[in-house]
Amino acid sequence: MEAAKKKVLNGVNIEQLFSTIDLIKEKPDVAKFKFRATNKWVNGTHCRATVKGFYGALKEDDSREPRVFDMDEPPVLLGNNQGTNPVEYLLVALSGCLTTSLVAHSSAKGIEIKGVQSRYEGDIDLRGFLGLSEEVPVGYKEIRVYFKIDADVSDEQKKEMIRMAQKYSPVFNTITKSAPVSVHLDK
Amino acid sequence: MEAAKKKVLNGVNIEQLFSTIDLIKEKPDVAKFKFRATNKWVNGTHCRATVKGFYGALKEDDSREPRVFDMDEPPVLLGNNQGTNPVEYLLVALSGCLTTSLVAHSSAKGIEIKGVQSRYEGDIDLRGFLGLSEEVPVGYKEIRVYFKIDADVSDEQKKEMIRMAQKYSPVFNTITKSAPVSVHLDK
Repeated sequence: MEAAKKKVLNGVNIEQLFSTIDLIKEKPDVAKFKFRATNKWVNGTHCRATVKGFYGALKEDDSREPRVFDMDEPPVLLGNNQGTNPVEYLLVALSGCLTTSLVAHSSAKGIEIKGVQSRYEGDIDLRGFLGLSEEVPVGYKEIRVYFKIDADVSDEQKKEMIRMAQKYSPVFNTITKSAPVSVHLDK
Repeated sequence: MEAAKKKVLNGVNIEQLFSTIDLIKEKPDVAKFKFRATNKWVNGTHCRATVKGFYGALKEDDSREPRVFDMDEPPVLLGNNQGTNPVEYLLVALSGCLTTSLVAHSSAKGIEIKGVQSRYEGDIDLRGFLGLSEEVPVGYKEIRVYFKIDADVSDEQKKEMIRMAQKYSPVFNTITKSAPVSVHLDK
């Protein structure tokens, strides 16, 4: 029982996590991942993305079933509600990444978690998208996140869990520190 | 026929687009939107986000049905494939936003589009997430995008369509120019 408890905490396989870390220390290329998506325009503001394969741990992984995501705008933004819109998907991505980072890093530190909930709100001034103002940002002006953590630890420790989530979340760091995106015409 | 053609192009209601622009020029607050998501941790690297209401055009819109998105990692990243992972959702968001921006701005310029497809690949070195290196970025190091556009225009015009997509896409600009994200502990 005691050994099993240590091996998996909060559903995170700590043993696998630490053995992965040891492996990466020896072979840094194991840590290099490539994630992918494709997109096909449907009509108007409606398009459809598909996610399937990725590269990581030194090999291609094509074993997953494809997953499909419809995106569209609500009527007020010229769409027909055929899907969640792209800026909302960005919040979905951020929410998943902060949550996973919080749980993984807290688990590695041996903190038992009963529950984690969070909410996200981001401000966009559409004058940027519409080309009506050079002064407002085209992207999110600001995003606010609020976490509720159910665990038998102090508020100070909960705040430290949130700091770890921010420090190690790839999506959080992509958004707050930026990443270069090159866009090409494919013949 | 001729009037109907002008009113809607590529499924985009151009008339509504230009009347929205006129309205925003008069009342800039109409352009201020707030998008939202919530997230609940399930177990391990599995969590679930929900998107429903938003604020925009001077009012709350709670009319849409909630949409739910499961996120998880593949086994090599300690998960059980219960969903697409958060960094893949970021590519989904980017794909939808660049596509919608390309189609909307091309439509406003009167360009008829037959098809748009695109593919996305982003590099992440997980030594950042794992805290094994301060030198590699925690987020995406680089994202590459390739567009195929089916339209009766020159390659130079297609490249201009891609430049407009980049200039006006909120997700592209959030990623490439960064946005502040504040994270709080909710009591």
